[in-house]
Amino acid sequence: MNKQKTASLDLHRKHRGKLEIRSKVPLYTVEDLSLAYSPGVAEPCRAISRSPESVYEYTTKGNMVAVVTDGSAVLGLGDIGPSAALPVMEGKAILFKAFAGVDAVPICLDVKDTDEIVRTIKHIAPAYGGINLEDIAAPRCIDIERRLRRELDIPVFHDDQHGTAIVVAAGLINACRLTNRKIEDLNIVLCGTGAAGNAIARMLRAMNVSAITAFNRSGPLRKDKVTEGTETQKLFEEKILDEAPYGAKTLEDMLEGADVFIGVSIGGLLEASAIKRMNQRPILFPLANPTPEVDPQAALEHGAAVIGTGRSDYPNQINNVLAFPGIFKGTLAARAADITEPMKKAAAKAIADLVGQQLSQDYIVPSPFDGRVARAVADAVARIAREG
Amino acid sequence: MNKQKTASLDLHRKHRGKLEIRSKVPLYTVEDLSLAYSPGVAEPCRAISRSPESVYEYTTKGNMVAVVTDGSAVLGLGDIGPSAALPVMEGKAILFKAFAGVDAVPICLDVKDTDEIVRTIKHIAPAYGGINLEDIAAPRCIDIERRLRRELDIPVFHDDQHGTAIVVAAGLINACRLTNRKIEDLNIVLCGTGAAGNAIARMLRAMNVSAITAFNRSGPLRKDKVTEGTETQKLFEEKILDEAPYGAKTLEDMLEGADVFIGVSIGGLLEASAIKRMNQRPILFPLANPTPEVDPQAALEHGAAVIGTGRSDYPNQINNVLAFPGIFKGTLAARAADITEPMKKAAAKAIADLVGQQLSQDYIVPSPFDGRVARAVADAVARIAREG
Repeated sequence: MNKQKTASLDLHRKHRGKLEIRSKVPLYTVEDLSLAYSPGVAEPCRAISRSPESVYEYTTKGNMVAVVTDGSAVLGLGDIGPSAALPVMEGKAILFKAFAGVDAVPICLDVKDTDEIVRTIKHIAPAYGGINLEDIAAPRCIDIERRLRRELDIPVFHDDQHGTAIVVAAGLINACRLTNRKIEDLNIVLCGTGAAGNAIARMLRAMNVSAITAFNRSGPLRKDKVTEGTETQKLFEEKILDEAPYGAKTLEDMLEGADVFIGVSIGGLLEASAIKRMNQRPILFPLANPTPEVDPQAALEHGAAVIGTGRSDYPNQINNVLAFPGIFKGTLAARAADITEPMKKAAAKAIADLVGQQLSQDYIVPSPFDGRVARAVADAVARIAREG
Repeated sequence: MNKQKTASLDLHRKHRGKLEIRSKVPLYTVEDLSLAYSPGVAEPCRAISRSPESVYEYTTKGNMVAVVTDGSAVLGLGDIGPSAALPVMEGKAILFKAFAGVDAVPICLDVKDTDEIVRTIKHIAPAYGGINLEDIAAPRCIDIERRLRRELDIPVFHDDQHGTAIVVAAGLINACRLTNRKIEDLNIVLCGTGAAGNAIARMLRAMNVSAITAFNRSGPLRKDKVTEGTETQKLFEEKILDEAPYGAKTLEDMLEGADVFIGVSIGGLLEASAIKRMNQRPILFPLANPTPEVDPQAALEHGAAVIGTGRSDYPNQINNVLAFPGIFKGTLAARAADITEPMKKAAAKAIADLVGQQLSQDYIVPSPFDGRVARAVADAVARIAREG
């Protein structure tokens, strides 16, 4: 076992997990107890009972997010179940706090049925100001999010979809600045049509990208190749995706004349030499982890202008942590009932704009530890929500 | 509005609720992030996936309790719903931490159907080491607890039932010491047969009390007066309750020859003069809040030997906080799958024994702020759990 694996096991074992609950109020005297608990606590209860909106005034609800999973698509590990997913959910919860001061708690669901998941989350919703769905397998994650957004009065956000899409969009905005392209002119090849791929396609189309074609395990995608009723079919129906050229038989063929390659699939799919078929100075986001779809170093040698990956040991990490803490911070601050397309676009732009004059091949998105990020995202999101 | 009410509203508004989530691990560097989150976090996930029991080693599960309500029987306020119940659940959560170092989170359920509540709690169970049910209306709370205890592999405890019963039992042990009675000889009148009354009757019978008769809104209880299939009928079927004497028409009549009055009903039911019909030096636990069933001062003047109430401004507060933090601390430490009758009895005895030589009319149970309580309860409970 390598050093990092051992160190992570040790860290988790040492503290028996990563989060704890703390009181924000003193509890040392009979008087303290009588205010924070019985009998004094009856008063905020009565106030909320009379005026339901005051739950945001007297409780943690307005700053509390539930990080919900069924453990069916955890990292690259797949369907490991709700208990084995708990370390990731705890990690997510502490990132919310560290990066945006948002409180978050893990909810690990021992159920995989879409209806049951939707019903369960609705049942437990009252204590939370927002729901962050996490590591739920596609396609049910898309349906679950869609239904919860419609049926709940608090924001629901599937980070694996929209967090990724927002940071990809931010990276793309700056990659365009760097290579003198316009977003609207881009010809993009998307490799992978799962949860992240679906959301990336939708977000980029909403930003008026010229062409988006997609490739998945069934090959280059065309209308006649997708199954009736699937999420992928909806992408064609809603004119999110364009059809792959009829001549294209392989992923390599699809790169002909493309400006951008975005991979949210599996590692090592693409020979670096194939990017020569793309337009000059192509933009590559091979995001598969831990092995990117194309080797970044080799791709640079074959003429890539800018490369973003999912890894922290390469430049330009496309890391969701740039998005979700600020997204929720801003949404909660504005008490928005939904996280809309304009709010997501504003978040992407805010992330991109922080790079400013330092923009370079190795710096198209801020570092996760750039302390300005969450606040900038939150402010941008809250502004749109309030203008709403 | 009185001063305490205003102060409680101010306290809750000032902090926007009472609890927060904190990280137990550092999150300052790329290295920190790679151990606590991706990619390092995959390793504890894999470990738990291979060996499910190790979830107690690598996550907070083993020290994390869900405080679950449907908001249907909150304090004396009744069915105010899950949002208005949140201040109580947050209060409970911070008491868990303050008194026993146990982490706890509120779960407020927007559903009242017994089957749905059971199903929802089972769905969310994986992240928790125990379930503390709270402020759920009788009789469904009894059914919910019974089913969850059977169907889950973590301890489930309805504090309004068993927490109260344990502290009543502790108080009664010492009241008997003070008045030279034996528990087994007691003739007890129980006023109120809701969640708490049901559990008190069951616990005292398990302690071999000689006679327990009960009174509720339908009057003195006899077998022929209870409805088929109700929890109260079960108390007769299982020989927990004795029939009220046929001659007894009122609560006052039932006091004839009784040693102990326990009230878990509504305030001001009983004239203090009526306790003259009880045996010499009677023991009274009028626990209704904020107004006890009988006025404590007047009862003393009419010959009561010892009085416990639910109030912090009288001596001998029968306060659940003496029980639930230590109960869960000990149960979690022993990783017991259930909180059994012997564990509850051991908890009651541990609470009573802490009073020791200081035992007096005004001191039959320790103060909630007695720092020894949670540990003594936890040790006693864990010992029984380990002995099996």
